Amino acid sequence: MVRLALDAMGGDEAPGVEVQGALDALEAWPGEFQIRLVGDPIALESALGSDRPSGLAIVPASQVIGMEEPPAKAVRRKRDSSIVVGLDLVRSGEADAFVSAGSTGAVMAASSLALGTLPGVDRPTVGTVFPTAGEPTLVVDAGTNLSCRPSHLRQFAHLGSVYMKDLRGIQRPRVGLLNVGAESNKGGDVLVETHGLLAADRHLNFVGNVEGHQVIAGVCDVLVTDGFAGNVLLKFYESVAGFMTATLRRAIPADQVSDRLQDLYRVLDSNLYGGAPLLGVNGVSVICHGAAPPKAIQNALRLACKAVQSDLILDMAVDLARSPVRPERRWRRRMMRKP
Amino acid sequence: MVRLALDAMGGDEAPGVEVQGALDALEAWPGEFQIRLVGDPIALESALGSDRPSGLAIVPASQVIGMEEPPAKAVRRKRDSSIVVGLDLVRSGEADAFVSAGSTGAVMAASSLALGTLPGVDRPTVGTVFPTAGEPTLVVDAGTNLSCRPSHLRQFAHLGSVYMKDLRGIQRPRVGLLNVGAESNKGGDVLVETHGLLAADRHLNFVGNVEGHQVIAGVCDVLVTDGFAGNVLLKFYESVAGFMTATLRRAIPADQVSDRLQDLYRVLDSNLYGGAPLLGVNGVSVICHGAAPPKAIQNALRLACKAVQSDLILDMAVDLARSPVRPERRWRRRMMRKP
Repeated sequence: MVRLALDAMGGDEAPGVEVQGALDALEAWPGEFQIRLVGDPIALESALGSDRPSGLAIVPASQVIGMEEPPAKAVRRKRDSSIVVGLDLVRSGEADAFVSAGSTGAVMAASSLALGTLPGVDRPTVGTVFPTAGEPTLVVDAGTNLSCRPSHLRQFAHLGSVYMKDLRGIQRPRVGLLNVGAESNKGGDVLVETHGLLAADRHLNFVGNVEGHQVIAGVCDVLVTDGFAGNVLLKFYESVAGFMTATLRRAIPADQVSDRLQDLYRVLDSNLYGGAPLLGVNGVSVICHGAAPPKAIQNALRLACKAVQSDLILDMAVDLARSPVRPERRWRRRMMRKP
Repeated sequence: MVRLALDAMGGDEAPGVEVQGALDALEAWPGEFQIRLVGDPIALESALGSDRPSGLAIVPASQVIGMEEPPAKAVRRKRDSSIVVGLDLVRSGEADAFVSAGSTGAVMAASSLALGTLPGVDRPTVGTVFPTAGEPTLVVDAGTNLSCRPSHLRQFAHLGSVYMKDLRGIQRPRVGLLNVGAESNKGGDVLVETHGLLAADRHLNFVGNVEGHQVIAGVCDVLVTDGFAGNVLLKFYESVAGFMTATLRRAIPADQVSDRLQDLYRVLDSNLYGGAPLLGVNGVSVICHGAAPPKAIQNALRLACKAVQSDLILDMAVDLARSPVRPERRWRRRMMRKP
């Protein structure tokens, strides 16, 4: 049985939402995993009340890392925080995976520190699953690495491909590069070089540049981008979806909402996806939105469990090992000349 | 009366769409402007048929610049193309403004060459009006300058502010900087420096960083960004709007579509806005989408007319003159150290 460590103090409404998500998950998928709730025992006992399903345990942690604290410093100083304690459970082998709705920066810093990065990874990344008219697309990077070199983007392509293979069962995930035009010479030096790297990589199923208007059609399974464009795109999408559904709900009486419209709502319901695994660290660490409701926590726990069961980390290590990164001498020289 | 030169050979379905747009514009706003249709006289005579309203004239141009031609080279070689001839009419004073649905790159190159850039402008830019839940936002740059220095972004802020003041009557346009977080230290060196420049500029009404999810709420009148993010955002928005309205039209019988839903459609109808004026050149030059329908051409002509009537170019020159650009020594040095 998979053992999950859940940061019970992470989200905006912790620990209530986390406890509810954990209880719902144990009920929805009985016998699949055990959950360690990491956090303040008194608050957790109180949130749990008389609910004590088997498979649920409390692991005490006396500190909490706030959303606004400088991540690296907070992780070094708060050694008894729920994030650090939870990840130590994974490092020591007492848990198989970690899930948190706390500070993304702190979870990233603590995960890199506790678990280490996989060989061949310069920067861990976070991908977010993006609902489309077709199958969902993994957008990677979703906001952690604002500006990237071609070799970073190529690593994202590999990590994202293994993710979509292991967790969504896609055999040869189509990799697209977010760009402003279809031609290989579009987008400036970094993207032109990245296009070349991806096209030459026989371990990737590269389908070429993907423009902004093609994303929603689901033309690729993994959309590679730097974190700036990824973040803007994802946040914008969430808001435009909310804006439109709000307008619709006002416009249409509930009894006239047909099945098709229900489908539309479902497409836009990002809570279905729940969490985003940190890609490139040597262990399973799943990040949720700070405002994640119980349903998202529940799905994030399920995702973490599937990542463990599918050997996601081992598969990523194998994939990276057979696609060694060449040094970027040429690109670096070019950047030096052009400030 | 304002005299407009219209590139009749520019769009994907030229000259039919251009001729129709011109006729509709003359009918909709009689006595406001005259139109010179620039292009192949035989094709234009044939498209016009027996329709010969007063205020419409044909100016012959024997060549056409295709969408795929290298812009600068095509502009230099095809001196009798509709784009070059049309802009020459503006340069020589025979027309007050130019409108084209042809190659954006060629219109930009020919406009810079024929009209020159305004003092204080390093790179002309294009802004696109973006429908929001509130008032529309001008996104500048919309895709012409993929990567930008802080001084470029500051110029965009000024050009965009004058645009929104003159053409949409907003007295102190709120300027936002597209970024991944609200704090002034977010987004990397270029955006941090830009934030400082905009905040210190007393001739701008800077409201701070704007994140992806805030755009749709209409929190600013001018959204400053580099062309990469601007392009991705605009193209994505167009597509998601199309995707949702298509889903809705399938989902809801036409007779159940209430007024509110009609409003939603209207918000998403980018044809209302028609064209985007090139900002930073010393004359009015409006670019339309290659697939622009007659309605968009019609609105672009009206926009060009309003730009002339409101003294847009003069106001931009005055605004730039009172906000001199300081050299970016500090920023350049920093970039040199960090390749």
